[in-house]
Amino acid sequence: MTLNTVSCSLGVTDLLAESRLWMEPAMRSAVARLHDGPRTISGFAFGWPEQEGPTGAGKGSSGGGKGIRPAIAGLAARAAGGKAEDAAPGAVAVEFVHAFSLIHDDIMDGDETRRHRTTAWKAFGTGPAILAGDGLLALALDTLAHATKGSSITRLTRTLIDLVNGQAMDTAFESRPWAGPDAVTADEYCAMAVAKTGSLLGCATAVGWLLGGGDEEGAERMDLIGRHLGLAFQAIDDVLGIWGDPAVTGKPVHNDLRQGKKTLPVVAALVNGAPGLALRLAARPSGGREARRTADLIESYGGRLHTEALAERELNAALSLITALPSPATADLELLARYLVTRRS
Amino acid sequence: MTLNTVSCSLGVTDLLAESRLWMEPAMRSAVARLHDGPRTISGFAFGWPEQEGPTGAGKGSSGGGKGIRPAIAGLAARAAGGKAEDAAPGAVAVEFVHAFSLIHDDIMDGDETRRHRTTAWKAFGTGPAILAGDGLLALALDTLAHATKGSSITRLTRTLIDLVNGQAMDTAFESRPWAGPDAVTADEYCAMAVAKTGSLLGCATAVGWLLGGGDEEGAERMDLIGRHLGLAFQAIDDVLGIWGDPAVTGKPVHNDLRQGKKTLPVVAALVNGAPGLALRLAARPSGGREARRTADLIESYGGRLHTEALAERELNAALSLITALPSPATADLELLARYLVTRRS
Repeated sequence: MTLNTVSCSLGVTDLLAESRLWMEPAMRSAVARLHDGPRTISGFAFGWPEQEGPTGAGKGSSGGGKGIRPAIAGLAARAAGGKAEDAAPGAVAVEFVHAFSLIHDDIMDGDETRRHRTTAWKAFGTGPAILAGDGLLALALDTLAHATKGSSITRLTRTLIDLVNGQAMDTAFESRPWAGPDAVTADEYCAMAVAKTGSLLGCATAVGWLLGGGDEEGAERMDLIGRHLGLAFQAIDDVLGIWGDPAVTGKPVHNDLRQGKKTLPVVAALVNGAPGLALRLAARPSGGREARRTADLIESYGGRLHTEALAERELNAALSLITALPSPATADLELLARYLVTRRS
Repeated sequence: MTLNTVSCSLGVTDLLAESRLWMEPAMRSAVARLHDGPRTISGFAFGWPEQEGPTGAGKGSSGGGKGIRPAIAGLAARAAGGKAEDAAPGAVAVEFVHAFSLIHDDIMDGDETRRHRTTAWKAFGTGPAILAGDGLLALALDTLAHATKGSSITRLTRTLIDLVNGQAMDTAFESRPWAGPDAVTADEYCAMAVAKTGSLLGCATAVGWLLGGGDEEGAERMDLIGRHLGLAFQAIDDVLGIWGDPAVTGKPVHNDLRQGKKTLPVVAALVNGAPGLALRLAARPSGGREARRTADLIESYGGRLHTEALAERELNAALSLITALPSPATADLELLARYLVTRRS
């Protein structure tokens, strides 16, 4: 009995734990190539227990991400007929690009907490955090470039441009008005989310497939699966950013509202004419009560429903592509896909 | 008469101007792929006249770099038997990686002026400047990945790691003592300079050669030429950072001394036992007179001579490799190489 057949019967937690088995050594050997400073910060960002940060900020916390992208890359490799571990260089590349963008985005957004830990810039300073992000990006590209032929590296570099442009759109949204003809539309929001989240999940899926021995045509389809899942994932992220339990999400309660983020629930409720919402949001609800009232208003004007419905549609689009795959990993891909929209953190 | 034969008789200024002819359109079409924010900042960093910055900081200034890396990539392509323009994707990649690292380094180092212009972070803010750097890096990789086969992209990604580690070493030098067994040594300095400056010039030379149709074996030799030139270049940069004319260099006078940088002239003078130098440097000479006295002390204890001699040796090592090239661009490569150590800015 191989790992491949065992894992079909496991839950998402086991699925993610399983991919961590081949991911962590690959990540560690890549990070070891960095100089002390960026290496320490990278370990901190990945939640490695030996890196607690200068003030012990990471002590005892689990830290690290869920590892969804590596897991999906491994499943895509299996879908192509290979082993999950075949995807390792691509999984490392995608996970490092993800970490790079989080570290830099946290600086740009001024976020002080992520994954129950102090963010890298807050713990180590802005300059060192910029460099650690750059280092992870460099490792990502080098790891993938050495391991692959064909379109994998160009898929990753194109994704990088999408990520930067997605973050630029997101930043530009901040200075747009809450209401009126210049307000952010739901379509613009989706374009941003596809660039910022869909692109990298699509890359994980396509590159995993290619590393598992799959062909280019199939890689395009896998990319599409990842993009649908990415948009669903981002929509759920927005729901959790307003209504999520901070003890579970690891982010401050009502974080997105207090930061005045123009997320999909907000955009949808504004389009539906929620009275006084634009004014409330412009004033950045800071008190717990005020933020809760704003969240209720968004919910009662359909912001949450609209966003969850979009996530559901995107999930179904991905699922119909997944079930058409003649592959051994279909069941696990489905499991992981469904988890992305039902997760609570 | 082709461009190739004409350029052999030109001076360095014309050589650089000539490569700008095919570089600028290639750079502009790449930068056009970025979203407004990072696109604007990139144009500002390149000194494009239409991007004066939010406060008109760039108005009327020439801005931009000298374009040494693109020029050397073009010459390397000609050395391999191709046309200078063949190197365009590699030249764009290297120039963008260079710009990316300057933009990020200026944030880390807190530098407010470069190339007679306000630095990007000072003009546009830290977050937007981080993102613009990321955008340029993404464009660099994507441009090269699409244009090349073989080792070009892995040469660039390896260079990226060198750059990050070189900057990490440079940063780590800051917290090392000025004297005693833990002081920075000349060897450590050279390892840092090769990583931070030599690696990218080596990449420019090797990738230009490959894009011009050259083989892998030759690319290794070209890489070595670039590394020697890069170390020479950095040594001269350090000399200019202390004794350069700020009206020509575009950086504040005695900039490196006031920032307490452990550059080669400083390290060499300390090794030679310049009396009181460690104390003077630790106190960060801020007044013009104090900085001038410190510069004089470094010079009288051989710091300047040692550094210029190293640059000379590295130049000669590069020249002996260049003259062995059976190539049409040898004379121009020599010209450009000599310029790197005789330049005043």
